[in-house]
Amino acid sequence: MFNRLALIGVGLIGGSLALSIRHICKEIVAWDKDALQLARARTLQVIDIAAGSAAQAAENADMIVIAVPLGAMEDIFREIRLAADAVVTDVGSSKMQVVDMARANLGDQFRRFVPGHPIAGTERSGVDAAVVGLFKDRRVILTPGVETDADACQRVMRMWEAAGATVEQMDVEHHDAVLAETSHLPHLLAFALVDSLARMSDRDEIFKYAAGGFRDFTRIAASNPAMWRDICLANRAPLLSVLHRYQKDLDAIHDAIERGDAAFLERVFTRAKHARDTYVS
Amino acid sequence: MFNRLALIGVGLIGGSLALSIRHICKEIVAWDKDALQLARARTLQVIDIAAGSAAQAAENADMIVIAVPLGAMEDIFREIRLAADAVVTDVGSSKMQVVDMARANLGDQFRRFVPGHPIAGTERSGVDAAVVGLFKDRRVILTPGVETDADACQRVMRMWEAAGATVEQMDVEHHDAVLAETSHLPHLLAFALVDSLARMSDRDEIFKYAAGGFRDFTRIAASNPAMWRDICLANRAPLLSVLHRYQKDLDAIHDAIERGDAAFLERVFTRAKHARDTYVS
Repeated sequence: MFNRLALIGVGLIGGSLALSIRHICKEIVAWDKDALQLARARTLQVIDIAAGSAAQAAENADMIVIAVPLGAMEDIFREIRLAADAVVTDVGSSKMQVVDMARANLGDQFRRFVPGHPIAGTERSGVDAAVVGLFKDRRVILTPGVETDADACQRVMRMWEAAGATVEQMDVEHHDAVLAETSHLPHLLAFALVDSLARMSDRDEIFKYAAGGFRDFTRIAASNPAMWRDICLANRAPLLSVLHRYQKDLDAIHDAIERGDAAFLERVFTRAKHARDTYVS
Repeated sequence: MFNRLALIGVGLIGGSLALSIRHICKEIVAWDKDALQLARARTLQVIDIAAGSAAQAAENADMIVIAVPLGAMEDIFREIRLAADAVVTDVGSSKMQVVDMARANLGDQFRRFVPGHPIAGTERSGVDAAVVGLFKDRRVILTPGVETDADACQRVMRMWEAAGATVEQMDVEHHDAVLAETSHLPHLLAFALVDSLARMSDRDEIFKYAAGGFRDFTRIAASNPAMWRDICLANRAPLLSVLHRYQKDLDAIHDAIERGDAAFLERVFTRAKHARDTYVS
């Protein structure tokens, strides 16, 4: 399907995508600002060619996938030039800021940019964590705008379907709100909890007695700190909105425990269990 | 080791204990206020005899295990009478309140009460969820006081060791603080998050896009609401203390996102990842 796929960033997501769509690419050329990661990707044969820069990787590519942390994305949009009929997409977890960056930097080629977000990942990072089945049966959300070229959109869709994913489209604002709720807030709460406990004087004992539920809870706190810093800042407004709501809810629970309001607590816990049992298989 | 083990409460913990120590009990007699659960435990041969009351189950037992929710425990201490040389223990997740109840109700027999807490469980409940290996390689914390009979303590310890657990002793106050931090707070945060999202208008979509981390995070929100209501109230003071600290930390994170303080966020996330990677295998 692609003669030359350019991959900017060969971390967990970029590396896994390369492994998953190898069969539809004549060649995969990549660049990563981390020279060791890039060399490692080449050694592992995750990619075919290591380019000297993002611009060089993008040259003559018919598909460019930007898989770098959100904070590193603007530089990429500034550097790359799209070949005629080339398509560019990204994998950022927050979309509005990326769309703004692309619009500001891509000029006429902006219509060939298809914002994308694979709902997949693990707490690990780097090309060594890349797995061929990462996107199998997972959702990928594309957030094209009115200007976005329909053919470009189709090609990105087919790329993700080749990786085994189910592709859906969503409005940018709506994507950012839903992701703040389902992904960004939970990660923030987990990071905050583990940090809160780690700063306590009896932390050795705390982690020694950490049981099943807590382990699951904290697994996501092993995720890449720089990536999550970028996500929190890129998706600031929707995240603050849902975080604020959560803080209010936590205040109400705090007060219920303080006044010994058993009925209030049972209502909260029962609603939560009901929702969890209903929606999450 | 035991001629007659009395089990008060045949839920997940009680049922799993019965399955795990069957080989050291001549007979296991049980009572549960839920007659259906009790009959089911008998049908599944998790227990040998279904008693008509807690007092009846405890009669002539040499070991009495109270495995009911914290809110139902005081009634049990009020009803049962210990045979000579009998030992009584419990499995409550919070210990100070249980010790107070036992002291108030057991009279001279209080020295034969050994407070216990197996650090094990799943989000499921009821005797049908009972599994023989639930306590294997898990920790059980006993919190005996100065009055507690050393022989009684030894017998409870051997019971849990027979179930495959590692037994440790801890001061009551310290147990309640550590558990508030490692178990009660995480459960509270998970319940609050799922409830918070479930009350939003786009909840169908929220749960549809709930990805890996969120699933793990919310698994513990499927836990028994009545049990957790009781735990929150029984362990009120230590839980409020650690919850309050967490709320302060969350406030600081909220403010950091609001002012775009990338360095602050990265510090929090890095400390959390470091602690998680260091302590949790």
